[in-house]
Parts: sequence; structure tokens; C-alpha cells
Amino acid sequence: MNDLSRLPNSDLLEQFNAVRAHTRALVAPLSAEDCAAQSMPDASPAKWHLGHTTWFFETFVLAAHEPGFAPFRPEFRVLFNSYYHAIGERHPRPQRGLLTRPSLEEVMQYRADVDHRMQALMAHADEATPWMPLVTLGLQHEQQHQELLLTDIKHLLSCNPMWPAYTDQVTPAQAATAPVPAWQAFKGGLIEIGHQGTGFAFDNESPCHKVYLAPFELSSRLVSNAEYARFIEEGGYEDSSLWLAEGWDWRASQDLSHPIYWQPRPDGGWDEFTLSGRQALDLAKPALHLSYYESDAYARWAGARLPTEAEWEHAMSSGVPSTKWESDQWIGHAWQWTQSSYAPYPGFRIAEGAVGEYNGKFMVNQYVLRGSSVATPAGHARLSYRNFFPATARWQFSGIRLARHT
Amino acid sequence: MNDLSRLPNSDLLEQFNAVRAHTRALVAPLSAEDCAAQSMPDASPAKWHLGHTTWFFETFVLAAHEPGFAPFRPEFRVLFNSYYHAIGERHPRPQRGLLTRPSLEEVMQYRADVDHRMQALMAHADEATPWMPLVTLGLQHEQQHQELLLTDIKHLLSCNPMWPAYTDQVTPAQAATAPVPAWQAFKGGLIEIGHQGTGFAFDNESPCHKVYLAPFELSSRLVSNAEYARFIEEGGYEDSSLWLAEGWDWRASQDLSHPIYWQPRPDGGWDEFTLSGRQALDLAKPALHLSYYESDAYARWAGARLPTEAEWEHAMSSGVPSTKWESDQWIGHAWQWTQSSYAPYPGFRIAEGAVGEYNGKFMVNQYVLRGSSVATPAGHARLSYRNFFPATARWQFSGIRLARHT
Amino acid sequence: MNDLSRLPNSDLLEQFNAVRAHTRALVAPLSAEDCAAQSMPDASPAKWHLGHTTWFFETFVLAAHEPGFAPFRPEFRVLFNSYYHAIGERHPRPQRGLLTRPSLEEVMQYRADVDHRMQALMAHADEATPWMPLVTLGLQHEQQHQELLLTDIKHLLSCNPMWPAYTDQVTPAQAATAPVPAWQAFKGGLIEIGHQGTGFAFDNESPCHKVYLAPFELSSRLVSNAEYARFIEEGGYEDSSLWLAEGWDWRASQDLSHPIYWQPRPDGGWDEFTLSGRQALDLAKPALHLSYYESDAYARWAGARLPTEAEWEHAMSSGVPSTKWESDQWIGHAWQWTQSSYAPYPGFRIAEGAVGEYNGKFMVNQYVLRGSSVATPAGHARLSYRNFFPATARWQFSGIRLARHT
Amino acid sequence: MNDLSRLPNSDLLEQFNAVRAHTRALVAPLSAEDCAAQSMPDASPAKWHLGHTTWFFETFVLAAHEPGFAPFRPEFRVLFNSYYHAIGERHPRPQRGLLTRPSLEEVMQYRADVDHRMQALMAHADEATPWMPLVTLGLQHEQQHQELLLTDIKHLLSCNPMWPAYTDQVTPAQAATAPVPAWQAFKGGLIEIGHQGTGFAFDNESPCHKVYLAPFELSSRLVSNAEYARFIEEGGYEDSSLWLAEGWDWRASQDLSHPIYWQPRPDGGWDEFTLSGRQALDLAKPALHLSYYESDAYARWAGARLPTEAEWEHAMSSGVPSTKWESDQWIGHAWQWTQSSYAPYPGFRIAEGAVGEYNGKFMVNQYVLRGSSVATPAGHARLSYRNFFPATARWQFSGIRLARHT
Repeated sequence: MNDLSRLPNSDLLEQFNAVRAHTRALVAPLSAEDCAAQSMPDASPAKWHLGHTTWFFETFVLAAHEPGFAPFRPEFRVLFNSYYHAIGERHPRPQRGLLTRPSLEEVMQYRADVDHRMQALMAHADEATPWMPLVTLGLQHEQQHQELLLTDIKHLLSCNPMWPAYTDQVTPAQAATAPVPAWQAFKGGLIEIGHQGTGFAFDNESPCHKVYLAPFELSSRLVSNAEYARFIEEGGYEDSSLWLAEGWDWRASQDLSHPIYWQPRPDGGWDEFTLSGRQALDLAKPALHLSYYESDAYARWAGARLPTEAEWEHAMSSGVPSTKWESDQWIGHAWQWTQSSYAPYPGFRIAEGAVGEYNGKFMVNQYVLRGSSVATPAGHARLSYRNFFPATARWQFSGIRLARHT
Repeated sequence: MNDLSRLPNSDLLEQFNAVRAHTRALVAPLSAEDCAAQSMPDASPAKWHLGHTTWFFETFVLAAHEPGFAPFRPEFRVLFNSYYHAIGERHPRPQRGLLTRPSLEEVMQYRADVDHRMQALMAHADEATPWMPLVTLGLQHEQQHQELLLTDIKHLLSCNPMWPAYTDQVTPAQAATAPVPAWQAFKGGLIEIGHQGTGFAFDNESPCHKVYLAPFELSSRLVSNAEYARFIEEGGYEDSSLWLAEGWDWRASQDLSHPIYWQPRPDGGWDEFTLSGRQALDLAKPALHLSYYESDAYARWAGARLPTEAEWEHAMSSGVPSTKWESDQWIGHAWQWTQSSYAPYPGFRIAEGAVGEYNGKFMVNQYVLRGSSVATPAGHARLSYRNFFPATARWQFSGIRLARHT
Repeated sequence: MNDLSRLPNSDLLEQFNAVRAHTRALVAPLSAEDCAAQSMPDASPAKWHLGHTTWFFETFVLAAHEPGFAPFRPEFRVLFNSYYHAIGERHPRPQRGLLTRPSLEEVMQYRADVDHRMQALMAHADEATPWMPLVTLGLQHEQQHQELLLTDIKHLLSCNPMWPAYTDQVTPAQAATAPVPAWQAFKGGLIEIGHQGTGFAFDNESPCHKVYLAPFELSSRLVSNAEYARFIEEGGYEDSSLWLAEGWDWRASQDLSHPIYWQPRPDGGWDEFTLSGRQALDLAKPALHLSYYESDAYARWAGARLPTEAEWEHAMSSGVPSTKWESDQWIGHAWQWTQSSYAPYPGFRIAEGAVGEYNGKFMVNQYVLRGSSVATPAGHARLSYRNFFPATARWQFSGIRLARHT
Repeated sequence: MNDLSRLPNSDLLEQFNAVRAHTRALVAPLSAEDCAAQSMPDASPAKWHLGHTTWFFETFVLAAHEPGFAPFRPEFRVLFNSYYHAIGERHPRPQRGLLTRPSLEEVMQYRADVDHRMQALMAHADEATPWMPLVTLGLQHEQQHQELLLTDIKHLLSCNPMWPAYTDQVTPAQAATAPVPAWQAFKGGLIEIGHQGTGFAFDNESPCHKVYLAPFELSSRLVSNAEYARFIEEGGYEDSSLWLAEGWDWRASQDLSHPIYWQPRPDGGWDEFTLSGRQALDLAKPALHLSYYESDAYARWAGARLPTEAEWEHAMSSGVPSTKWESDQWIGHAWQWTQSSYAPYPGFRIAEGAVGEYNGKFMVNQYVLRGSSVATPAGHARLSYRNFFPATARWQFSGIRLARHT
């Protein structure tokens, strides 16, 4: 798939079909039972992701612009609303796993019906059609849910003591060891971050604005599983001086001693739960599924710190990665925690109407992650992209890039 | 189906097939999704009931007595263990709804496989075979789970804001009003309760023992929906003096103002969630799905009290019901709360081995219910049968029979 | 102090002064700070006990019968109401420890003022005065709070890591070992329990009624610390088969491995927190401060069971204890858990008015304890006395008498 | 009291005596009972503040530098440790209110003893003595606890339904209305924030560093009670679109409809709980005791936003307040929430040793407040001072200054 952010509107129908098909492909390996369960309040059933992404198009495009609009099923307006107060009632999030009806089959019919009507509507639209940006937003939104669908399914399957596999495919092992990381220096100064140009971006990436950076260094690659295993072996989870106070209390209250999907093996090594089921931990790969607290503690142990989001974006926009492998370490392997709390950029303005609830109202007690992960749809991420999660989130494909002052 | 408790062992195979078929029939109207979800920690998914009742035969009969026994799937020993510490590890009860694997289909294969092997084993057994009583126990156990499966599915479907139906069949309405209840007097004295004879009974029904009863009266029928509605309309849920202190705090903490499956209608009447979906409340029928706290408060409001289990059993064994309608009010409509806490009978002895965990270890902070309900399999209940639930339980088919001193 | 229950009314004033003085004596060793703190929602500050027992006389006697009554301070009507809904608002129980005002000094003035007015009122009353029984009830009520005051202070001081002492006095050690217990046999039959005669008794002890008992045996003494220590050493807290299911979950959730006031010593023995501070555990004394769950598990481990309250009362009224030492094992050392849930006696009627809230509304999910303890005021207990607490209660002076069937 | 941050070390002894005496003066109106209670886990008893501030000098100065040091009482090392893991065990914070021993009197003796020994030690020290900066840190630390002592006592007394007063003194009413606020414009650019010069500052105020600011405007005064009351009257607590999502859920879960110390009057106006007890709300005064969530919602309602901490510091250092009244609106009335999360400044380094736990480990999920309040000791605050609390904190003397982009 190409980068959606650079598409002319005339190709949007083709993109619509591609993104919608990709979501269907993601659930192809899953049973109706797999799609219905919810492993924790923070996660949603795959069936709910399927319905909600369809609800977005039905609610924000069809209901407003389709001649003679009638809802596929009126109850879905409530069932598949995520958090839009302006749209009205919502089904309580922690109870999404109890919606055994509508069935997966009916939700797939809902998808097909809305696809069909969207295709008909879009056939008569062009770049100047006022609601076409809402279609783009809907596709970006669906891509976000594609990643969430994978994170949520991975968490659900991990709760099954049999650790069943989502897919038979196993990711090929990496080189035996990751290359030695290098510190890459940046002199900082008055730089700019934020979305530029005419392509798509979420409202939270704007406006582009100036930031002053002191000189800094970033590691040339992500922290590897081997390195994180050493942090554990050397007592990282038992030494309170490495942790933020709140992180230490969180760790202690749940008695955590390793990442969420790791399990110690009798031989002293580690197994890992993956989308391909139980596997020996690949030591050369970047460590994944780490919370902010774990990432921050690791950084302190390593004599370093997490980068700010401005440092990350500046480094990445300076053309740092010079090889495909390096590039993958920035975009495409792990979301990288920054020490920047999720906050509005100077001059940020919330969009009018219900879609204005998209981003701004979450700007408290969350931390920005940059880059993208193995679970991010191709073409979805951008240099200026701002992902965000609370400091406790462990089930995302999140890892660590180290920074330090010079 | 006939009364299992009166069966000669030689008919046990036929009964085995009938009980096992009945469980399958109960899930026939349900999708795989319906069978996988768990609406609260107290309830279990239908699929888990299907697996656990099968696990009972595999664990307690086949594993011990089948030549060359091999488990259908070793993981099931943990997944489908309910609370038998002696059998080893158990999957945590509140997470049964996350077991999307094994699939419903695989669990049905598990059932078929165990049925086939049980049939083979039983073909060579007779009344003298030492493990035949375990088969009877397993069938009684499965019948208990048949009722739980219905209570749990009803609760699950009620959590769906669309109130979907389990079945298209609607129970025919009763007569417009229930007959006026009469007080039936018993002179008491030194009587006996507990299981007598050679038929099957659970260990908690023994030994048969003497109890002294003061004279008492019982109502000739169950409290009706119309009567319970009047309790609500006259402020029963707002008057603390009617409630046990703990019941009042429970009511207040959840802001309860009516039974779990009732919903006020705009016209001032009540709708009720049933296995046939949303229905107008049938005022002539016995009130159902009441907690001990609600039942006790109602009785106090009515100037009466709940019976003891000895009073109930003595009245019933005195041949009280003289018509089919009256009889249904005792056995077959609603489990009837008694004020008797669930405790061992004098001389009660726990069975040896793992099945000894069946009843005794639950004898604290629960109250005995007598009779049986519309959801109880035909032939399962007995005069001496002791059902039990905590005082907060609202999702069972439980109702109220009034008593008073004379 | 003599037995209140046998007093002629003409001596009531003298008794009033004695009981009220005893309460003051109990708090004499305590500072204002000690009296203000609340260690858990189940406990109350000593200052609150002082105020509440005074509030009882002010509310139920003075407010109704004193000419020209004016409250000492109107706010106290709410602050010192425990659970009487009929009296109106109550200060939330878990926040009693936040009432730093009124000061202890002001509460003592409140006591003195109410005492003075009660004395004046009682000077003109005699046995026929209708409210004199309320004075007796108030004194019995105050004696109950005298014991609670000690249990609550003991718990509070135990929460201080310095384990400070309530008193300098140390109870003299017992004989090196307790005498070997004997099983005392009772043939049972149709017996009577409940309050008889004209002395004072709480409503929950009536009516006197017939109960049928199968033959049984009771141990001649309470379980000793030495015996309970052996239960621990032999794995009693690690063996789920000894525990009620709910008790085991409770034990596990709090990771309990010994009684609440015991602490293992480095030498393998036990220290105990007492009202005299930290002491070596006196092995010959009865084990104290045990919950129902712990008592029940111990009994199962010992191949016995807990008695019913009817068995206990029948044995005691049969004149069993033949020596002072034996008698103390029944009345005066430890409240003894029975397996009887706290329920109304046949024909029990709640008193009219606010004092009707005294007992009946607590008759659910609690278990009856019989006897009395080292903390019970002299003369307060009776053969028919029914104390009651939830199965989790550990901070009361509660112990174990074993029973068994014959 | 003068500004501590500008003191030559030679005056430190005088300052030591002044700060220590001021703490004693703060508790003078309180009883021992008042000083012992803890109203919530976030607050501490006054007695604990008295002990902990003394423990700081005993632990970090005397223990290390006093010849022949012996602790006043060894147990205090644990009891009065707040959060210093490096010092060892700590008494659990939520149980500080259970420490009825040591008594207030003993804690005052502890203070006097440590004061005496500190005075003796300081008599022989001068500016070059290596541990003198620890004395300064201890005094700054004690001043922080002086404010906390007042916030915690205010919260405790507010939990008493009688709303008792801390002091008889009543703050004189303000002018009938606050002056009309003006927007003061700043052109921004590359500016500097952070501590400069040689006076005392906490580690979190360093290093001084460059920040780029877009042009912005700040309100000339704090939001008044009258303005905040209008926000309530116009539905501010019922309109989810004004709130951060997490703030809205927090508000709803506690059913909040006004600031913590406000109470509606029957006449439609507001009363307020103050340190002088219940008072009519002074409409002209700045609104106080607001959480971040409430402040942020108010700002959105007012068409504005909260400032960043860099904007605040830059404006204040630009010499903005031109009158005493204006100045008080910046420093001395209310801590002002900023939208800046509490994070390390570029190049921040944690101090060596136990005092390194002072600030850095709290840098997550908290928001910076600037200025100071009516409860801040004179001379304690600075331009670069960074106070911080979680977004839910309501019991601090915190208010709102509005900002907007230009």
C-alpha cells in the first residue's frame, strides 16, 4: 500500500477499497469466538473494531450526505460509538466483550453494506466535494484500528494458558546479534517540528512550530531483547532507585519482573508469546511491549534517558537513517516512548463538530510515542505522527530508543 | 425424562445418553459467540459448562477406569476444572470468557469423544461396578449445570442493550390473576428431614435427622409479580426498616429499585427480560430472580417471614399440594429462599477423595433454597434437595414463599 | 461487679454509676490521641464509644422523659448515632477517626452532664417507671461497648510498628501446659434453649424454645496456643482441603499464615501482641483472636467440628464445669465460635420503635459466638447470650471449643 | 521573614530558628487530636509533618556530622521517613494517622532536642562547612511542609460535619468585585527559564535553559470566585465537551458539581469552608482549591487555555506586575496550574545520595504549578519555583490564570 498522506483525492476510492479489504484480511485467521472476546477494559474485541470503523463512515459521511439515508441498524449508533459524546449514548467500554449479538457475520454484512453505499456515493464525488476529507480521516482512523486490532488480539490470545497462535507464519530470525549501537550527535538549536505540506495529518500534528533544542545524542538503534534481558538479570526490576516513584509502586503492586509477553524458561533463557504462538526470544530483535515506566527505568540503568518528541522528529527529519536496516529501526519496528507528555502544540485548534473529539480531549497523563511498529499498516505513519498511551501501557508494540545530553 | 433418583442402574446408559443429549439441545439456539462470553465472575460461558461437565466424566471415570486411558487434550484438565484443588491447577474463574480456544466445535468433539468412550465402558458394567455411582453423580452434576447454563445465558443476553432472545418460543400467559393465597397450618413437633431411601441424593442431604418445629403456617403459593410490584410501588426499596442492614447497604451501593430483569415502562407498567426477549411482565406469575435480601425485605413488608428449610421440607412431605397447579408452586416454578443458612446436617460426612470437595466446602455465608424452577431439568429435584446461593444472588430463578408463626 | 441481669430495679442507680465509672476507667491509660484514632472501618475510636454510649441515654431516655430537655449539643445526635435509621442521619462509620472535634475533654464533659441528668431523673423513678428497662438496656449496651473499646484499642495499638502497651500490667503466665482435654458426652434429645426467667436478656435470646439434639461430645477446654501452633507447623495454613472454599480464598488474598497478633520469632517460637505490648506467646493459654474460617479449619484438622449454639448452651446449662478453672474455659476466657449462623429464634419479635433496630437487622452472614472473654465486663454474659460476628472477624477475643458426633 | 534564597550562610542559624519556630506557631491552635488524624492517603497528620521535618535534620545532618551521634529514638528513622528508599524501611503512608504514639508531646520534645543539637553544631560551622547546604535544603523542605500542614489540616477539618475553624481570625473581605481582567501581550521568541544566580533553588529548577515561545497573552489577574460561580451556573460541570476525557470520567465517578470546599446555600449563593470555618464565599477573591481538570475545563469554557510554565516564568520575569495588588495575583494568592507536565529540564542531573530522591523520581503524570499561595511561607517561592501535583489534586491552594495565543 502506498502512503495515504500523499494521495490525490481522485485515487481515494481505490484506497478506500484497499484499506477496507486489509481490515478484512486481518480477521481472516480468526474465529467468530476470537473476534468477540475482550481481554481487558483497555482492549476491544476485533468484532467491535470491525463495527466501529464502519460506524465512522456511516455516521460521519453517509448519515450526512447520502440521499435517503437509513441506518443499517439503528442500535449500532450506540453499540459502535467509541467516545463521541456529541453523537449521544455509548455502550460501556468494559462490556464490549458481552456483545455476542450482532454476530460476526452480521457485522461483516454491515461492512459490506456500508462499503457498497460509500462506493456509490464516492463515484459522484471529486476532490472538491466537501466531505471527501472525512473519508480520508475515516481511512486513517481505520488504519489506527488495524494496529489496535492486532495489539488487542495478541493480548487476548496471551490470556489463554495454551498461548494459541494468531498465524502459522513465523517471522524469520534476525542476525545472531544486533549491531553495536552508536551515539549519533545533533547540535540542536532553533528547529521546527509538526506537520508540513498538503498531505493528510491528524490535527494533533499541527501547527508546525519552532522549538529550541540543546545539543543531544540519540542511539542509532532500538534497545534489543538481549540488552533488556541483561537489565533484568542485573536486578533492574528489584532496584527502586532506577524507577520513577509511581512506576515503582505500579511494578510492586503487580509484582512485575519481566515484560508482559516474556516467560522464563527452565534453562534460564526466555520464551516469548508472539502472534505465531510461543517462541524462543529472539535476542537480536528490538525489545517490544514495554511500558513507559519500564522504558524509563531501563534508560536510567543504561546511563541515558528517553528522547523528547522534538529531538526524535528533528533527528529523523535530518535524514539520519542511511540504510534500510537503520530506517526500520526508526519507522516500522517499535513505537518509541518519548519523555514528552501528550500536549497541544502552540496554537493547536480543535476541529468543529463531533470529529473535534478525535484527539484533543486525550491530552493529559499520556506520553507521546514516535515512529511506528511491525503492526502499523504500511504508509500510515509519518515523521510528524504522534501516538500516545498512558505510562502503564504494556500491550502496545512499544520499545526504547535511548538519548543523552552532550 | 423420568426421575433419575429412582432409576435402577441398568438403565443408566440410557439416562446417560438422554442427559448428555439434553445439554446439547440447550445450546442448539446459541452461536459460538454466545457460548464463549462470560457476563460476570459468578457466571460461566456455555462452552465452559459443556466442557466442564465432560471433564467430570473424563477425570473421575475414564482416567481411573478406562484401559489405556489418554486424555482428549491434556490442557483440558486445567481449563475445565472448576474448583477441585485435589485435581490440581485451575484456570481462574473470572477469565473463563477469554478462552476463545478451544473453539465450540472442538468442545463438541470433546463431548462426542468422551460420550463414545463412556458408552463403551458402561457397556461392560452393571449395578455392582464400583464406579457406577460416579456416573450417576456426573449426570446429576450435569443437570445442575444445565440450569446454570440457562441462568448464565439469560444474564449474558440481558447485558446486551438490544435484549436479544434465546428462543422464539414465548411462554403462554397465565390466568389474569393468581388465586388468592391461603395460609396452610402445620402443627410441627418432632419431625424428620433429609434424604431417605435408596435413590440418588447429594451428600449434603444426609443424614436424615430429627428436627423439632414449632407450629407454623406457609402460604399456599409463591409471591406473584403483581404482589411484588405493589411492594415496589409502596416504597419497599426506599424503606430501610424493611431490610437487613447488610441488604440495605448492598441495595444502596448499587442503587437498586427493582428486580434485575425488570424495566419500568413509560406507561407506568413493567417490562421483563425473558429467554424470549423483552416481554410485558406477566402479573399472575410468580416473581423470579430475587435475591435473599429482596425476598427477606418483601416478607417483612408483608408481615411474614421466610420459612426454614425444615418447615419447607416437612410441609412438602406432608402431601400439601393437592392439585397440579399447587404442586407446580412447590416444585418447578421458582427456587424458594429459606432463612436457613447452608450448614452440614448433624453427622454429615464428606466423601473421600476429590469428589468430597463437591458440597461441604461451600457451607458458609450461603442460604438454602428449596423446590426447583422452570429452568431445572425434569426429574432432577427432590423433596430433600438443597440448593444454595449467597444472599446477593439475583440471576437465579429464585422466588418467595411466605411463612409465619401461629 | 455483680450480675446485672439479676438486679432489682431499685439498685439500678448504683449500677448505672458503676458501669459508667468502669467505662471511664477503661480509657484512663489512654491519651486523647489514642482515643481519637480508628484503625479500620470495623473498629471505632474510643472517644466515639464514649460518646455513643452516652448518646444512647440522652436519645432514648432524656430526650423522651426529661422535663425541659435540651440536647447537650445538637450535632451529637448525628455524630454519635451508630446505625439507628429511625433516629435520622448518621456520620459515616469509616470516618469516625476524623472527628478530632469534639475533643476528648468535651466528650468527657458530655458524659458528666448526661450522668448528672440521668441521676436526677432516676432519683424519682422506681421499678414501675416505664422507661426503667431502657436504662437497663443502655447499661447492657454500654457493657458491650466496653469490650469493643478494648478490642478496638488493641487493634489500633497493634497497627503501630512499635507495638505499644495499653497497660503496664502483665497477665501472669499459666501453668506450663494446659491439662489434657477430655471429650464430655451429651446424649441430646429434645432440649430447650433461650432466655428464661425475669432477668435482663437481649431480644435475640428469646423466645425460649425446644431444639432436638443428636448425641454429641464437647471438649472439656478451649484449644490452646500450643495446639494452634502445631496446626500452623504442620501446614494448616497451606492445605486448602482443611478450609471452607470462601475461607481459603480469604486467607490467600491476604496471604495469612498465622493469627493476627502473632509474630514469628527468630528462634522459631512465637511472640504475641497483647494489651501489655509484645510478649512471648503463652503456650498454655487458650488461642485467641481467631476468625471463624481459622477456627473451622483448625477443627477439621483436629478431626472435629465446631459446636452448634444449641449444643453449647445445653452443655453449659447441664452444669458441666465442675471447677473454677473449667468454668473459666466456658465463660470468661474466649468467645467460642459456633457453626450456627445468627438467625432469629422461632417466634422472635423485634421490639417497637428505634431500639427495635438493636439486633434483628444483623441476622445474616454472621456466626454466633458463645461464652465470653477476658475483655467482657464481669456479670455481662449469660448462658443464653448470643454474640455474633462475620466469619472474617479476627480482632475479637474469639477462640475454639471442639465438638464431635458420637 | 525574609527571602531565604538571598541569605548569606552566616545568617543561617537565625533562619533556622525562625523557620523552626514558625512550624511550631502553625500547630499552636491545634489539639493533640487534631495533629494526629489523617484525612486521606494524600494528606499527612500535622504530627507527622512535625516529626518528618525534624527527621530530615537528624538523618541528613546530625547522623552524619554530629560527634557521638545517637538517635533520639531509633524507631523514628522508619516512622518519619517519607519516601527515601535509600534510608531504608518506611511506615506505610496511608497509616500515618494510626500513630497515636509517639504523642504530640514527645514529638515536640524530639523537635526541641534536634533543634538544640543543630544549634550546637551550627555554632561551629561557617559558609565553607560542606554540610551547610543541607541545612538550607532542610529549611526549604520544612517550609514546603508548612504549606502542606495547612492544606492537610484544612482538608481534615472539612471532613468534620461541624466544619470547625482552625483559627478565629477571619480574612478581611476584598473589594466588592475584582477589577476587570486585561490581556497582557508577550511577543515571545527565544527566551530563558530556570534558576539563575547563587541563591538557593531546588534541583528541578536547573539548569537554566533556552525555550522558544510563540507570541501569547496572559490575563492580568486570577479567575475570581464570581467568574467560577458563573461557569457552574452556566452548566460547566454538565458539559462533557469542556472537559478532558479523563477529567470528565473523574468528575462523573465522584459526581462533582462544584469546588471541594464550596457548599450551595438555600438562597442560591455559596458558602465556603475556610481555615476560619464556614464563611459566605467572597466573590471578589481568586477561586481556590481547583484541580487541573477543573481549571482546564474552565479555561476552555472561557475561550482560553492554561499557560505553559515557560510562558508564566517569562511573563513574570518581564516585570509584569506593576502594583502590589497585581503582584499578589502572581505570587502569594494561588498556585497557578500550567499545562506543562512535570519533566526534567534539558540537562537535569539528580543529586548524589539519598537527597537525590528529592524531586526527579516524581516526574511523571503530574502538572507544574507556578506562583505561590496564601499558605506559602513568606520568602519561600521564587520566579523559577516549580510546584507539582496530579491533575486530580483539589486540596491545594491552587487557582487559574488564563492564557491564549495571539
